[in-house]
Amino acid sequence: MMDLILIGIGTGNPDHVTLEGRRAMAEADLILVPRKGEDKADLAGLRLAILAEAAPHVPVAEFDLPVRDAAHPDYRQAVEDWHDAIALAWAQAAGQAARVALLIWGDPSLYDSSLRIAARLQPAPRVRVVPGITAIQALCAAHAIPLNEVGAPVLITTGRRLREGGWPEGVDRLAVMLDGETSFRHLPPDGVRIWWGAFLGMTEQILEAGPLAEAGPRIVATRAAARARHGWIMDIYLLARGESG
Amino acid sequence: MMDLILIGIGTGNPDHVTLEGRRAMAEADLILVPRKGEDKADLAGLRLAILAEAAPHVPVAEFDLPVRDAAHPDYRQAVEDWHDAIALAWAQAAGQAARVALLIWGDPSLYDSSLRIAARLQPAPRVRVVPGITAIQALCAAHAIPLNEVGAPVLITTGRRLREGGWPEGVDRLAVMLDGETSFRHLPPDGVRIWWGAFLGMTEQILEAGPLAEAGPRIVATRAAARARHGWIMDIYLLARGESG
Ligand SMILES: C[S@@+](CC[C@H](N)C(=O)[O-])C[C@H]1O[C@@H](n2cnc3c(N)ncnc32)[C@H](O)[C@@H]1O
Ligand SMILES: C[S@@+](CC[C@H](N)C(=O)[O-])C[C@H]1O[C@@H](n2cnc3c(N)ncnc32)[C@H](O)[C@@H]1O
Repeated sequence: MMDLILIGIGTGNPDHVTLEGRRAMAEADLILVPRKGEDKADLAGLRLAILAEAAPHVPVAEFDLPVRDAAHPDYRQAVEDWHDAIALAWAQAAGQAARVALLIWGDPSLYDSSLRIAARLQPAPRVRVVPGITAIQALCAAHAIPLNEVGAPVLITTGRRLREGGWPEGVDRLAVMLDGETSFRHLPPDGVRIWWGAFLGMTEQILEAGPLAEAGPRIVATRAAARARHGWIMDIYLLARGESG
Repeated sequence: MMDLILIGIGTGNPDHVTLEGRRAMAEADLILVPRKGEDKADLAGLRLAILAEAAPHVPVAEFDLPVRDAAHPDYRQAVEDWHDAIALAWAQAAGQAARVALLIWGDPSLYDSSLRIAARLQPAPRVRVVPGITAIQALCAAHAIPLNEVGAPVLITTGRRLREGGWPEGVDRLAVMLDGETSFRHLPPDGVRIWWGAFLGMTEQILEAGPLAEAGPRIVATRAAARARHGWIMDIYLLARGESG
């Protein structure tokens, strides 16, 4: 039975890696690193840089990350097939290694498919998860703000949900991820504050914050410019409504 | 102007500390460590052990953590006064040091008052936050489970909210913290799963999981026994409803 270790590496700052993560890297027999498309080459580069520092003696197997069939008529089926293909690519790259590690962006528990892909492997591996700093934490740290109001709840959600459902009932703080469309634009901005961050933890990090009415348009413009410059962008934001401050 | 660095140290496993956290400790002029009551002595011990390893040359100032006036008729006012008193204790312990660090349980952004206490200091310090592994992440990692269903939201909330408001609308996963009363007992258990963890990341770690109907009573008993044994307990859980799996 293979040991599969999913190691959260944080969101772009190599110093996000924990001691537990470093140890798990150093103790692996083999580390799988996906080759990504050219536009995200920096991300594969970050993984290799972390490994060169934390586990220079451990062999690395690079593998081509299968691409999801964007033309497939059934989206869910396309994702299923894609996850099957990734599981196969992992198995092939892992070969006969007993202790195989994968470096996972942020934390393996948050909007990440690795655990679901690992569940497809046959025979089933023994899976261990090493937590890592999430984009939510990188956002709050960069702005030096709390995620929650005292004793109050916070909803972690996606751009799609916000766009389709509006501001959900019963909660005054939303951490919004996976939003390619600055979906906050569709909210009535009155009384709402936003804290936004792109490329968090990386040298390109950009931060914006303020009342949504004035910060919103600024963020839309900043985001578009940064995206054009880099070819891609990763961003996240926290929204708060009805606060005194 | 003082630099105040709030360093997230994770939830009990010294290996949760990130490289960024270690660096911030090593670069501080002074590190403030609260002396806690005897029952939580292990927690002060953990901080000192982390420091002995990561920043052996940096002086540590231990200070008595003021106690909240539990007899105060106005709860909010009691908390305000308490935070004032903590800010004063920090200022006294910091003295003239230029770069002062505090080790924060988990992540400084999640259900933690340090940022609000820091805002009371006069003159205002320059505050820097170093993110750390939260109890939510330690829970998911220990159970090797995702926090969210694919593309779906998760609510982070408290035992009190769950008790007083029941299961909130529009969200099928709840991460419940700050719950001294196993408030899941008040939910209709049908179709609900629970993943529970106490003392996560510590040698005493306990995990339980299953359908709420059968796991709930087991957790209530396990928690009571563990609490009696240790004199205190820290626990957290994730609830999911209406899932296929
Ligand atoms: C597929 S999810 C993975 C999240 C990751 N597992 C974590 O723990 O943060 C990707 C989303 O995370 C957010 N994200 C990840 N890294 C980020 C970064 N460095 N800066 C801003 N947002 C980031 C963005 O919202 C992005 O759409
Ligand atoms: C005041 S909050 C602080 C949370 C912390 N800042 C974090 O990032 O996890 C304390 C709550 O966190 C949870 N918690 C913290 N450490 C824990 C641990 N080691 N095991 C289980 N729960 C823990 C419990 O729900 C507890 O009531």
